[in-house]
Amino acid sequence: MPNIRLTAFKWVPSLAQGLVKDLRVRWALEEAGLEYEENLLGVGEHKSAAHRAVQPFGQVPVYEEDGVTLFESAAIVMLVGQRCPILLPTDPARRARTISWMFAAMNSVEPDVQNLASIDLFFANEDWARLRRPDAEKMAQSRLDGLASALEGRDYLEHEFTGADLLMSTVLRILRHTDLVRNMPVLAAYQSRCEMRPAFKRALAAQLAPFAVFAPAA
Amino acid sequence: MPNIRLTAFKWVPSLAQGLVKDLRVRWALEEAGLEYEENLLGVGEHKSAAHRAVQPFGQVPVYEEDGVTLFESAAIVMLVGQRCPILLPTDPARRARTISWMFAAMNSVEPDVQNLASIDLFFANEDWARLRRPDAEKMAQSRLDGLASALEGRDYLEHEFTGADLLMSTVLRILRHTDLVRNMPVLAAYQSRCEMRPAFKRALAAQLAPFAVFAPAA
Repeated sequence: MPNIRLTAFKWVPSLAQGLVKDLRVRWALEEAGLEYEENLLGVGEHKSAAHRAVQPFGQVPVYEEDGVTLFESAAIVMLVGQRCPILLPTDPARRARTISWMFAAMNSVEPDVQNLASIDLFFANEDWARLRRPDAEKMAQSRLDGLASALEGRDYLEHEFTGADLLMSTVLRILRHTDLVRNMPVLAAYQSRCEMRPAFKRALAAQLAPFAVFAPAA
Repeated sequence: MPNIRLTAFKWVPSLAQGLVKDLRVRWALEEAGLEYEENLLGVGEHKSAAHRAVQPFGQVPVYEEDGVTLFESAAIVMLVGQRCPILLPTDPARRARTISWMFAAMNSVEPDVQNLASIDLFFANEDWARLRRPDAEKMAQSRLDGLASALEGRDYLEHEFTGADLLMSTVLRILRHTDLVRNMPVLAAYQSRCEMRPAFKRALAAQLAPFAVFAPAA
């Protein structure tokens, strides 16, 4: 019996399918070979007081193991990585640089990427969004340029796949509705290389499976 | 001789003084009792190819120790914390929750807080910013509400001060130009409690010291 429980959603709209942040945790658990059970929230349940008691911002995922409850997908990837040297290398210098890149994915790349995606997916018809979009795209592009420079001549951020690539490639996925990544060969190849991993494919399939079962009646 | 070298700025405009992210690293090093030397960048030097070779996004801080070069302030706080149980508790469950909160500060709270601050400090006269500001403030407020709920009845996120409080309180500082934190007694007391620490005071003084020396002629 798995003693890991992952909280995710029964269903989300198609624009979020394959992007919900439990994907990162599922992927990490697949890389580590750890089984888990699911706790799937119905529509609106993430806003409940019960859920907010374990996730103060009303988001998913939540991760429970042996009585410890954790949140923040990147933190959980790091913690799973403590049992999986693929994700978090044991060599101190590589491990330290991997941690730098994990935070870079979450704090230096994702905010500008998510800002552009929010403009496009949630606010496209608002006046402020039309005015802001060109510069928001430039800001996201600037972060992608920095990432592409760092990846020049290497397959992964620390040469071999780590948890930093897991996180960074899921950040790049947020731009799937645009051509920004597709137009940058270094980044497109990098994302594809990460997503070719069997653990990613299993994780993505696991996130999507309940969405088919729980899809609202048309 | 210290073998730690921290890259920061010689000078920044007043609106950024006391907020530049090397503050977090200085604070962590002060908590850990580790000496460091400074490498201070002049105006524009953070955009140089030499700096981007060690910081792909052209930011500060950069941290060097024993031939290893790291970036991302939160990552460096975590790595310093591996030598300082105040910052990163040794009990596995407390340590795991501290890491959750470190990522929460960087990925669930700072983006909306920084978005509001950018609107106010950099784009206040732009039409899109005037249109967007009310909802941007609501989004920041929502994150502050989640944080305040989690802090209810406790002095720090994990009851005693950790690196998560170090990061979270520096995120709250970004809102110093507003009344948002001041209007929430739980958060105002929390920020003040963190900033009363002697290590914070030394770190802040150390960041500000060169700004007086290198201020441009009026």
